[in-house]
Amino acid sequence: MSAQDKIRVGVIGAGQLARMMVPPAIALGIDISVLAEAPEMSAKRAADRVGDYKDAETVLEFAKTVDVITFDHEHVPQSVLRALTDAGHSVQPPAEALRYAQNKILMRQKLTELGVPVPSWRAVKTAPELQDFIYEHGGRAVVKTATGGYDGKGVRVVTSGDEAADWFAQLGDTEALLAEELVDFTRELSQLVARNPSGQQATWPVVETEQRDGVCAVVTAPAPSGSAAGAAALNEAAANIGTQVAAGVGVTGVLAVEMFETRDGRLLVNELAMRPHNSGHFSIEGSITSQFEQHLRAVTDLPLGDTAMREPHAVMVNVLGGPPEGAMPVRYAEIMAKYPTVKIHSYGKSPRPGRKVGHVTVTGHNLQAVKQQAIDCAAEFGEGA
Amino acid sequence: MSAQDKIRVGVIGAGQLARMMVPPAIALGIDISVLAEAPEMSAKRAADRVGDYKDAETVLEFAKTVDVITFDHEHVPQSVLRALTDAGHSVQPPAEALRYAQNKILMRQKLTELGVPVPSWRAVKTAPELQDFIYEHGGRAVVKTATGGYDGKGVRVVTSGDEAADWFAQLGDTEALLAEELVDFTRELSQLVARNPSGQQATWPVVETEQRDGVCAVVTAPAPSGSAAGAAALNEAAANIGTQVAAGVGVTGVLAVEMFETRDGRLLVNELAMRPHNSGHFSIEGSITSQFEQHLRAVTDLPLGDTAMREPHAVMVNVLGGPPEGAMPVRYAEIMAKYPTVKIHSYGKSPRPGRKVGHVTVTGHNLQAVKQQAIDCAAEFGEGA
Repeated sequence: MSAQDKIRVGVIGAGQLARMMVPPAIALGIDISVLAEAPEMSAKRAADRVGDYKDAETVLEFAKTVDVITFDHEHVPQSVLRALTDAGHSVQPPAEALRYAQNKILMRQKLTELGVPVPSWRAVKTAPELQDFIYEHGGRAVVKTATGGYDGKGVRVVTSGDEAADWFAQLGDTEALLAEELVDFTRELSQLVARNPSGQQATWPVVETEQRDGVCAVVTAPAPSGSAAGAAALNEAAANIGTQVAAGVGVTGVLAVEMFETRDGRLLVNELAMRPHNSGHFSIEGSITSQFEQHLRAVTDLPLGDTAMREPHAVMVNVLGGPPEGAMPVRYAEIMAKYPTVKIHSYGKSPRPGRKVGHVTVTGHNLQAVKQQAIDCAAEFGEGA
Repeated sequence: MSAQDKIRVGVIGAGQLARMMVPPAIALGIDISVLAEAPEMSAKRAADRVGDYKDAETVLEFAKTVDVITFDHEHVPQSVLRALTDAGHSVQPPAEALRYAQNKILMRQKLTELGVPVPSWRAVKTAPELQDFIYEHGGRAVVKTATGGYDGKGVRVVTSGDEAADWFAQLGDTEALLAEELVDFTRELSQLVARNPSGQQATWPVVETEQRDGVCAVVTAPAPSGSAAGAAALNEAAANIGTQVAAGVGVTGVLAVEMFETRDGRLLVNELAMRPHNSGHFSIEGSITSQFEQHLRAVTDLPLGDTAMREPHAVMVNVLGGPPEGAMPVRYAEIMAKYPTVKIHSYGKSPRPGRKVGHVTVTGHNLQAVKQQAIDCAAEFGEGA
């Protein structure tokens, strides 16, 4: 990178994650361009091309215009990723790492191999196999499709193997479903890590995530703890898992490690996301270096920025879409007057019930006040949280 | 605005100020477009059109594509501004206000009329008139061209009327130069104010600005004071001047009021800028609402955001261009490793000696450490500060 006077990053996918990479790219003078799925996407301000990310030729053409390829999502097929790598393009995170974000069974195998604590799990190919797993785990289990799930889709809590019969029926010969114990957790946490190709890593304080219907709704940063010593211990345990996973799977860019905190105080890894993540949006205002800036630094193999909190607390609440008359700008006059300290983020999407159309973040010294304000403000937009 | 589901802002001029409006426009979901002077300008990511801002037809065509017209600079001719207004376009700040930023003699007249403290001044049309002013003010004076000056250009300290002979020779019949007393100031301050068309105003804490060769080099926010009481008194005095000027001239958007603090503790207004200003760049990280977000809120007549500091101190240092091999990205690897807490802003401009190509900002609790780090980091890029 050192001899160049331009750094060109190409992002595949034009959702809100690509959109939120644009501001730090502008600040750092990084030329960002986006390969969009369709013309009117969230990141359209940087969308120089529209095309199918499943088509190797389209993606290869796009890659020729940039120095590094990175992603808004994890759905680019391995064959396309390999074609990029074979043609000499820098793909960050690399295909080898992305496999673990694309297939939950591969991910569970890898984490188990790395000695990372995970819920008890098994790859199951038939309803009776799932039924066995359920019997062995107290009569209930979580079953997940290995690929294609997100935001609670492709996940079911079942008490009988037959409840996944439709999914089993669709499995190919080499495919399986993932059965997992239903963890008795007290809360969900997320550890964000960034790693660059040179191996430098940075972690943010671990955050607490609250879900509604399987969708991330409220993120509290840092995750509340009863005491400073408790916070330090929790942060250390979570950061250790995060950095072990990041190095172990060879990810570059931002990695989100979603975890359960169990009633007996253990941390079990639930999911991995190899890109900036909803649980890291608080960092735009909350951290010295946001996850979006850090992702750009990491994928271009630049040194990582400081991840300290700017203020003691930050709370982010998602805004879900409602009827069109609730589109974010329509209510700005009223809501901005009422919440002058709230940072509003719109994704420029047309509202549909349940669709993530934006988020709000509040930072400050009093956690209760910060959280209440974020929740109240988000609730005034569309469905709120 | 309330019935719209899109807010479209058009910016005339594509320098770094327009560029830095793009990130908050993306966050708020405001469609920003820029009328650029040339294709390869700083704000090119949002530059939808290239054309001459002195040409009414070009500007009128551009205005049809947006809801509000605002500015990266104050150089759009009054005739063009009036044509926009006559055609029913919303121009923020309005032509009537911009006159005072375009002509320093009009500005001095208006401020005097408003009772705002300014240095002793006179409009002078000939060298002997300037000579008289010099005699009356201790043998020295500052002389300025009424229009066209910036960054120390169009300003001279003189001891004789003849030293401005070349400028007098170029004056039209109705034109004059501005003669001012050379103020015995201890430091320079800048008060940022935002005002929307509904009349709501917001002020940031007054900042200290340090100039090098007439160019803003270092900004310390808030301006240091010996005591908390001193800081409160200074802030109140500066904010009062700022809001009085903003309402008095009818500005909308961000107004920067540059002031001298005299040895005997008075504040005298030096210059006005009717747009986001170099002295407000600290607010991107330093304030809950940055001057760029606030400018967008103000010109679209949305409620203004909170202007409190996020951390006790913020220091911004400009980066001036040097030889091409010193272009900002070229040195990122080295400098980011050394300064992980520094926020780097590149304007995407090719470096030329003395040209503002970027800035850096550091925030924190220890002012001395914050300032030293910002100065040291900026010095490593090109010429530094």
